[in-house]
Amino acid sequence: MDLTLLTDWLWILGLLGLGVTWMIWERVRKLPPGNEVMRGLAAQVQSGAMAFARRVAVVMGAFVVLAGALLFLVAGYRTAGAFAGGAVCAMAAAFSGLFAAVRVNVRTAEAARYPGLPAALRTGFEGGAVAGLAVASLAVLGTGLLYLMGIGRPDVYEEIRFREFAEIVSGFAMGASSIALFARVGGGIFTKAADMGADLVGKLEAGIPEDDPRNPATIADLAGDCAGGTAGMGADLFESCAAAVIAAIAVGMTEGTLTGYENRIAAVALPLFAIAAGLIASIAGVFLLRHLKPERPAAALRTVQLASAALFLVMAFGIVFALGFDLADESTGRVYHYLGPFLAILAGTVAGTLVGAVTAFFTGPRAARGIAEASSQGAAANVLAGISAGLQSSVPVLLIVCAAVGAAYASAGLYGIAMAAVGMLATVGITMTVHAFGPIADNAGGIVQLGHLGPDARRVTEGLHTAGKESGAVITSFSIAAAALTSIALYAAYASWVGLAGINLIDPVVVIGFLLGGAVPFAVAALTITSVSKAARAVIAEVRRQFSGNPGIMEGTVPPDSAACVDVATRHALREMIIPGVLTVVAPVLVGAGLGVEALGGMLAGATVTGVLLATFMANAGSAWDLARQHVDMGAAGGRGSPAHQAALVGDTIGDPFKDTAGPSMNILIKLMSLVSLALVPWLLSLPINQGKGAPPQEPALSMLEAIARAVTHLV
Amino acid sequence: MDLTLLTDWLWILGLLGLGVTWMIWERVRKLPPGNEVMRGLAAQVQSGAMAFARRVAVVMGAFVVLAGALLFLVAGYRTAGAFAGGAVCAMAAAFSGLFAAVRVNVRTAEAARYPGLPAALRTGFEGGAVAGLAVASLAVLGTGLLYLMGIGRPDVYEEIRFREFAEIVSGFAMGASSIALFARVGGGIFTKAADMGADLVGKLEAGIPEDDPRNPATIADLAGDCAGGTAGMGADLFESCAAAVIAAIAVGMTEGTLTGYENRIAAVALPLFAIAAGLIASIAGVFLLRHLKPERPAAALRTVQLASAALFLVMAFGIVFALGFDLADESTGRVYHYLGPFLAILAGTVAGTLVGAVTAFFTGPRAARGIAEASSQGAAANVLAGISAGLQSSVPVLLIVCAAVGAAYASAGLYGIAMAAVGMLATVGITMTVHAFGPIADNAGGIVQLGHLGPDARRVTEGLHTAGKESGAVITSFSIAAAALTSIALYAAYASWVGLAGINLIDPVVVIGFLLGGAVPFAVAALTITSVSKAARAVIAEVRRQFSGNPGIMEGTVPPDSAACVDVATRHALREMIIPGVLTVVAPVLVGAGLGVEALGGMLAGATVTGVLLATFMANAGSAWDLARQHVDMGAAGGRGSPAHQAALVGDTIGDPFKDTAGPSMNILIKLMSLVSLALVPWLLSLPINQGKGAPPQEPALSMLEAIARAVTHLV
Repeated sequence: MDLTLLTDWLWILGLLGLGVTWMIWERVRKLPPGNEVMRGLAAQVQSGAMAFARRVAVVMGAFVVLAGALLFLVAGYRTAGAFAGGAVCAMAAAFSGLFAAVRVNVRTAEAARYPGLPAALRTGFEGGAVAGLAVASLAVLGTGLLYLMGIGRPDVYEEIRFREFAEIVSGFAMGASSIALFARVGGGIFTKAADMGADLVGKLEAGIPEDDPRNPATIADLAGDCAGGTAGMGADLFESCAAAVIAAIAVGMTEGTLTGYENRIAAVALPLFAIAAGLIASIAGVFLLRHLKPERPAAALRTVQLASAALFLVMAFGIVFALGFDLADESTGRVYHYLGPFLAILAGTVAGTLVGAVTAFFTGPRAARGIAEASSQGAAANVLAGISAGLQSSVPVLLIVCAAVGAAYASAGLYGIAMAAVGMLATVGITMTVHAFGPIADNAGGIVQLGHLGPDARRVTEGLHTAGKESGAVITSFSIAAAALTSIALYAAYASWVGLAGINLIDPVVVIGFLLGGAVPFAVAALTITSVSKAARAVIAEVRRQFSGNPGIMEGTVPPDSAACVDVATRHALREMIIPGVLTVVAPVLVGAGLGVEALGGMLAGATVTGVLLATFMANAGSAWDLARQHVDMGAAGGRGSPAHQAALVGDTIGDPFKDTAGPSMNILIKLMSLVSLALVPWLLSLPINQGKGAPPQEPALSMLEAIARAVTHLV
Repeated sequence: MDLTLLTDWLWILGLLGLGVTWMIWERVRKLPPGNEVMRGLAAQVQSGAMAFARRVAVVMGAFVVLAGALLFLVAGYRTAGAFAGGAVCAMAAAFSGLFAAVRVNVRTAEAARYPGLPAALRTGFEGGAVAGLAVASLAVLGTGLLYLMGIGRPDVYEEIRFREFAEIVSGFAMGASSIALFARVGGGIFTKAADMGADLVGKLEAGIPEDDPRNPATIADLAGDCAGGTAGMGADLFESCAAAVIAAIAVGMTEGTLTGYENRIAAVALPLFAIAAGLIASIAGVFLLRHLKPERPAAALRTVQLASAALFLVMAFGIVFALGFDLADESTGRVYHYLGPFLAILAGTVAGTLVGAVTAFFTGPRAARGIAEASSQGAAANVLAGISAGLQSSVPVLLIVCAAVGAAYASAGLYGIAMAAVGMLATVGITMTVHAFGPIADNAGGIVQLGHLGPDARRVTEGLHTAGKESGAVITSFSIAAAALTSIALYAAYASWVGLAGINLIDPVVVIGFLLGGAVPFAVAALTITSVSKAARAVIAEVRRQFSGNPGIMEGTVPPDSAACVDVATRHALREMIIPGVLTVVAPVLVGAGLGVEALGGMLAGATVTGVLLATFMANAGSAWDLARQHVDMGAAGGRGSPAHQAALVGDTIGDPFKDTAGPSMNILIKLMSLVSLALVPWLLSLPINQGKGAPPQEPALSMLEAIARAVTHLV
């Protein structure tokens, strides 16, 4: 049977995946939500998270309408419509996970109380699975429908359809990326502002412990953990996955990259099949957890990820085998092995796993011990040790990305690079599940603490929290590598879409472009770090205002106004993300229009290299400080209350905006810059500075309505 | 008169400059060296600095012999001989300044005691002028002699001579760069290890003040300031200046860049005339100081720099006018204005001044106040504010470099870019003078403190110290921008020397090279930061050993063994610079041989962009923390002893290795990688992977002896 005949129907698998997600949610939802105190706490966290989500959604909605209108004027209604579609999918991916997380947290806490660890692990994990499988299913659904509307199998060949398709898909990915920007950057500022605000006033000024119910910022802190960890990461990974598939399709169908009709049809089908297989493997992984020993939660989480990856690779092998590639590069004449695309996928999957291992090493016990020891020489030694560990870790991560690019290119050319990105991201379902587990476990611990559920329950949630934190560090680093590979794949798509013969690094205009591109991540990092400080100051002022205005709060007789804290943090987070967001979108437009499309190519390369390095540095330094502080908490270098503990707290506080705000922002930044460039190519090519470059002007293309109509008739 | 006839004789101007330097030294040397205590202290600092210099010189010598032998095998004796010549010039530039600085420090202290500020400023400044004018004179002498031996005017045209010349000059620059690596990285580790060691044991453990004579690390600290501030910076700026001239000559004489015989002769002459004019302008600036009001030392230092730059620009205008350019780009056919090369020089000079202004803003009083205020919220807030300021400052610095590249390219093509670098570095004499003034003033303050010379003298030296520190921050940033422009110019030379049609960023191999290059500065930053910590720990252990083994030291009855501390710091500094040094040299070799010359081009570009950004970030964050701490010292945010002061000390300590070790190392790194690549081009092109790329094989070229003989006959 010809497998490619099935491509038109793959989106249905996305629907089925959503159905499985719903089933899991229904099961988890019915678990006992604990006693009245716990339910009350959970309700507060929920209303905090939903207040954040609502306000962000309103701003997102306004942004999507405005940006969509602008895109409509500049790039046409197809791009604008696809932009809206991508934004809706990303919002669904981001908020479904958040919705589940703030409801599963209390059920995990209850399970930790009774019956104990196995049930708590499973509850938290399946709560994470709602986020994870929603992301993966929406990716399959969204890209499957795009394929259907944009291409439909028999038309793969027509160059004009490719142009049209490229407009649609880049619009879709840009919509997803914009939402990811809000969720990741805004969510990152929100969560760290609430965290720092809660800690600085609570612990240092008022002298009350972490997660104390009297602290008005405690609820905002717990809600922020979920917002940053599920909505932010969910939108980020959804966007990477969709963009990787889109890049693979775009490169696969470009003339000059692959020879032969059958090959090109297969090349376009493969990324869709791959993420469909990844969704199946992720679902299998989710159900596998029930059969693992729960005593060592971190090991269990690793096992399900590795098992899903292995299952995915087996399926990917079968798919590539069945598609029967016979690849050659049209421009160089180079012939590839018929399993080349599988090897590229393998390179991506292996690279993703290796990046995790490297991160685990650089942020793991050994590094934490070293930083903890340095802490006994004071805060400066602690900070320098963490910075050094972070800088060091960025090098092997980059080497792994380079090795993956090289291996994939050797296996299947430019198409191979895009497929490596797909391979890395195909099991996004299980990856996101494990990541979303982190804030759920963290929240459960907070509820156990706030609800005085006793030492046994606390031991269970602390174990889960530690496992979640380690996996979180690994997956944050993974998300950076995935963003990097995706950017490189998008970069290849940009180049072939513009039709440039070359982006020549000898041309000084290109040099200026890449220098400018390199500066953008530094600017955004500076801005977001400052933003967190500013927003945290606002939260601190609010908490102080409540403490001084109402002494009953500290006495425990009057509940604090948690909603006001959430509101302050949300408002500041949204205000503070405007400048980095605008900079990310405007910089490529200015360079493309002012210096030309080659300089823009240089800019994207420059932004990718500094973005990846800064992101890894910041994320891993932050994780290393965090674990070092935990290490000291548990007795190293003098333990709690020692000078080393003070020093470790300094590093931990610096690491918070590093790992949860500035670092993750880079992921969005590098992808969004590429996507904006990709979407604006027709407009850029119409400018005087770019005259005579790129492909000849296109014929009028299909309207969105026509495309939908065509897709429907094609199916019927 | 045809100005180019004079080119052969410009090296004599270098000799004359050395004569002026000697005159200034003779005058300063005869100033009163203070009372017996002061002379004793100065003798200790001198012997400490000389112990460092001797040991480094031995290692440098061994390295030059070994690397020269290797170069002889790989690239021939001409490159090897030039390598040795460059190394000798750079050593002379580095150590003559150090030699003077450790002798002028005590004379400046004596002048501060009597007659007071004007004499102290002048003494310190003229001590700095020994370093500054030596660097500038050696640059004129070295490049002038290279020109004479390598080209000689009538042969400018012959392609074969160009190849030969390129081999010689890249060898020369690489020799200078290797020495700069030792002086800058080794000196940076030495000075910060001594500084941190002295502070941590002295201030924190033994409770004795800074610069206490009982602390065995005090002398090493003072010697280290001079070693880092004069030898390190001197070798760095010498190398930048020589490399910029070389790049301009190489680009100017390449076929395809400029049209016409006369033009090319003029283009080759211009950079040599420019630095000769810069030397004259610098000498004028040195003598101008005597006529300025000394009450505001910082303003006086700024005035001499601006006056020298203005004088240089006037001369440069006259030279360009007299040379009578009539430029056009052979490959694009673009015609440039006859003053184009002057405009390029102007762009470089203006960019250098602007970079200084930006740095003064980001590390100046306003930033310092902000960071000081953040300090009252704790060490983490202080560190985050400094990091944010540093990250922010890197963006405008890069924008200025981009603007200079763009303006220079528009004025005179690729040649213009190289001339912009020359324009930025031409007044290196006065720049280095002002920079070397910093550690002399710092040392003078230490001697005033150690010798109990009273509050009046202390007030004078503190004023000088502050002025020196502010100028130091500005010039450190300037040196980064200069290294960046030089690297870009060298990059252009690399590309035209390899004869590549393009370094195409669409080629994944180039992208891999680009990513790998970007990672090198991160690796070196991580290594050097760790190195400082390790070396500081060794110094700390030595100080503790002396304190506990000999209680007489703390009682003040027995002098501490300062030489042992110098020895420990030197040994560790030299050991710790091996890995970063080897990495810098080996990385381009591996990429060029393993992935090809295009990937190597990508690597150089990637290293430049992340190197410049990291260097600016680290240098400026370090300076901002330093000034913020001073600000708190003087009473801001609670003043000395407050919690804010503790927090400010944390930032200051983190900033030390940032601004004096890791940041400056980047300058050397990016230049040395380019130069290694340039020198190994013939070898790289002979490898199988690079077959068919680049220029056809050369005919046998002149021997070094023949070249010297030819130069002599040419003169006679």
